[in-house]
Amino acid sequence: MGKATLESKACDFVLFGTKGDLARRKLLPSLYQLDKANLLNAQTKVIGVAKDPFTTTDFRGIVETALKTFVKDELCEDTVARFLKRCHYVGTNFTESEGYQAFHQLLKPEERVMVNYFATPPAIFGDICRCLSEQNLIHSDTRVVLEKPIGADLASSKVINDQVSTYFNENQVYRIDHYLGKETVQNLIALRFANSLFASKWDNRTIDHVQITVAEEVGIEGRWGYFDKAGQMRDMIQNHLLQVLTLVAMDPPVNLDADSIRDEKVKVLKSLRPINEDNVYENTVRGQYTAGFLKGAPVPGYLEEEGANLKSHAETFVALRVDIDNWRWAGVPFYLRSGKRMPFKSSEIVVYFKNPPHNLYKSNYRNLPANKLTIRLQPHEGVEIQMMNKVPGLEQKQRLQTTKLDLSFSDTFKNERIADAYERLLLEAMLGNQALFVRRDEVEQAWTWVDGIIQSWDESSEKPKPYPAGTWGPVASVALIAKDGRSWDE
Amino acid sequence: MGKATLESKACDFVLFGTKGDLARRKLLPSLYQLDKANLLNAQTKVIGVAKDPFTTTDFRGIVETALKTFVKDELCEDTVARFLKRCHYVGTNFTESEGYQAFHQLLKPEERVMVNYFATPPAIFGDICRCLSEQNLIHSDTRVVLEKPIGADLASSKVINDQVSTYFNENQVYRIDHYLGKETVQNLIALRFANSLFASKWDNRTIDHVQITVAEEVGIEGRWGYFDKAGQMRDMIQNHLLQVLTLVAMDPPVNLDADSIRDEKVKVLKSLRPINEDNVYENTVRGQYTAGFLKGAPVPGYLEEEGANLKSHAETFVALRVDIDNWRWAGVPFYLRSGKRMPFKSSEIVVYFKNPPHNLYKSNYRNLPANKLTIRLQPHEGVEIQMMNKVPGLEQKQRLQTTKLDLSFSDTFKNERIADAYERLLLEAMLGNQALFVRRDEVEQAWTWVDGIIQSWDESSEKPKPYPAGTWGPVASVALIAKDGRSWDE
Repeated sequence: MGKATLESKACDFVLFGTKGDLARRKLLPSLYQLDKANLLNAQTKVIGVAKDPFTTTDFRGIVETALKTFVKDELCEDTVARFLKRCHYVGTNFTESEGYQAFHQLLKPEERVMVNYFATPPAIFGDICRCLSEQNLIHSDTRVVLEKPIGADLASSKVINDQVSTYFNENQVYRIDHYLGKETVQNLIALRFANSLFASKWDNRTIDHVQITVAEEVGIEGRWGYFDKAGQMRDMIQNHLLQVLTLVAMDPPVNLDADSIRDEKVKVLKSLRPINEDNVYENTVRGQYTAGFLKGAPVPGYLEEEGANLKSHAETFVALRVDIDNWRWAGVPFYLRSGKRMPFKSSEIVVYFKNPPHNLYKSNYRNLPANKLTIRLQPHEGVEIQMMNKVPGLEQKQRLQTTKLDLSFSDTFKNERIADAYERLLLEAMLGNQALFVRRDEVEQAWTWVDGIIQSWDESSEKPKPYPAGTWGPVASVALIAKDGRSWDE
Repeated sequence: MGKATLESKACDFVLFGTKGDLARRKLLPSLYQLDKANLLNAQTKVIGVAKDPFTTTDFRGIVETALKTFVKDELCEDTVARFLKRCHYVGTNFTESEGYQAFHQLLKPEERVMVNYFATPPAIFGDICRCLSEQNLIHSDTRVVLEKPIGADLASSKVINDQVSTYFNENQVYRIDHYLGKETVQNLIALRFANSLFASKWDNRTIDHVQITVAEEVGIEGRWGYFDKAGQMRDMIQNHLLQVLTLVAMDPPVNLDADSIRDEKVKVLKSLRPINEDNVYENTVRGQYTAGFLKGAPVPGYLEEEGANLKSHAETFVALRVDIDNWRWAGVPFYLRSGKRMPFKSSEIVVYFKNPPHNLYKSNYRNLPANKLTIRLQPHEGVEIQMMNKVPGLEQKQRLQTTKLDLSFSDTFKNERIADAYERLLLEAMLGNQALFVRRDEVEQAWTWVDGIIQSWDESSEKPKPYPAGTWGPVASVALIAKDGRSWDE
């Protein structure tokens, strides 16, 4: 149960919200790529669901257009033809179960795994589940994939999860955080636990602090109304950055099974030191971008974007000092920052090691630069170690220089295509492997911690600090880390 | 005393054996390079000494020819002109002090540092010292640089060192091991003590074993008679490999002063577990090359070289398992090997770290490949870390792959000329810095240990094991390390 492999079992992949942006940009192209890589069973079907009364032919036309528009490499005609034949369509109002009767002709839920992907507003997740249930479409091998955001705080996420759990057990629920599908994020576990150089040095005796940065170059991209309700904290920190943090900070799992890993991740989330009104200004900075320049071109400020409400206090930048109150990390701060309209797109983890206990080079360096390990999540995926070497030369005063040992994934794995995160995640959902999905208790622990920060912000009268588009956020972000005698990685 | 810098004090550099191979190939070109780099005081003189009755003009012609022949980059005419003006000549029998009278016209021993470089057979080191003394040429700032080999065993090295020490204090004696002048060897100290990633992981808790390889492509190069008396053990292991071993293994010195470093190096040499008749076959392999092929071309065997004595038992290859009986290295073997007629020239140190305490990937790898740090001394100087990363891809079974983080010195320090080891060493001798020279107790400790091995070999009737030229030595060398469950780095 839930362990069928694609080789042995076909799958009905039901895509609710098949006309939406996510489906067209990411999900359908990813399914196509899986088909191209021969990772879909010959019997696997893709069933799009939306309100419109499309015919199968209409729908296949829509899918073909999506592939032509959004698949980056050249399309393989044979694969396109094969893939389109898999595609079927059900037109129904999502909240009325009569329309779901059409599934009975398409599905074989007793023979095939059924994966329901909810690319819809979370408000109707519960309705879809109810309709599936009313039509008797839920079996032990029926799964649901929930696209974020699941709620806007702990309370609303509980409502949605409760609705879904009325019909599905936790082992049937796949909560997506597409960061977990990234190759570089998956590599974190190998990096940490297959390399003694790091495995034995991953704690407060050897690490000084950790920085996690997710910088976006884009602004709001026409979704001001949606974003303004969320803000960067809910949109990026609560999910992506906290997920990355847990993978960096977790204790070694008992094994690589889904729940063994998720057990350790939850423990990290439970250990996050609460941030509340007492310490919120010490440990957080929120910013909102103003007009500025990005790569030489002028760009509008957040309040000048289309649809903006001039009174908005929504943050487009967050910097945090996070303390993890457990044995491994006591005294080792994790600095997180994420913002829109940064100078360039960049996601990375930087682990700063402690200095050697004694500085033999103090006549040259009052403070020796520390060794650091940089894990570049995107772009230019790779791993880099900064270390000190002697500069060649005949000077009497030995000059040292920080130098980099570099491993670029694209150079190293030239013959391997780097799969999109969604390809990996859709495949895992079809295979029934939950390791890369977020368990309910993880979501709720993350919200518990994030809610404290958002409430403290809301209760204060202070506005987000302005920063010009094209910069690394408000100066207060520099001060946040500088008061600890450290600085953001550059 | 002994602390004068070039800026403040000129130097008389007296080169005994100025017509020899070493002087022409290495010493005169290195002095020229120092001149070109403006590291010689304007008043510094170079005084060649040999038997022949040359005029200054003759001698300058010899020097100019040496520079034209052996300086690798294009000659700077201005520097050549300036350098030749520094050159003077004294023709004398080295062992008769009357001939040394000529120095009085050239030298100002009370004003200038005097560096006497003995590029002569060690048998006459004592005579030269006596002659300098008889002519009253030895002052507190008079130094001697002794070219190896200093003796062929502990007893003969003591004789030579005793002769020299009759006239000079230890702080005036500079024993050359040109390996210590190599940039990559000097970088060892920075690598170990300026990088916490290694500083805190450099012992038997974290390191499994260490390999040091110095492979030569060349054979005997026309010096069969000389080499046959020495063998690879005296020619390479006793000096170069043991020096590198001490730098890898030493405890952190109190500071970077010459004697602080040498104190730690001697401690390592004192801790070497003796190899004697009881354990010599367990811990050593000696080989002698036979005819073979090197890069496709046939080359003769050692006993077929010009001047060979067919009964020779001299070893052209040595492999050793060395145990260091101290707190840091108990249980961590150092495997050393050095040979002539290897497949290619290569000197490197490879540090193998222990595996993580638990293998999370045991379903894929019964034994995870270990992390290793490779320090390439020559050629392609650089540093490399082998680690494990996940291979990108959608396979269910996570594939890991050993990948390399690489730092190439020539790529990294593009604008820095890599100085020849002799440039560094001549400069240090003129500046009075003994850190890169071998102290008497180091030499004697090294001989004490090496003598045990050579005596055990001599007392046995076993011959060196044959290996074809162009291979990595006798198969017994593979067995030496394989019986410990390890293998030579490839």
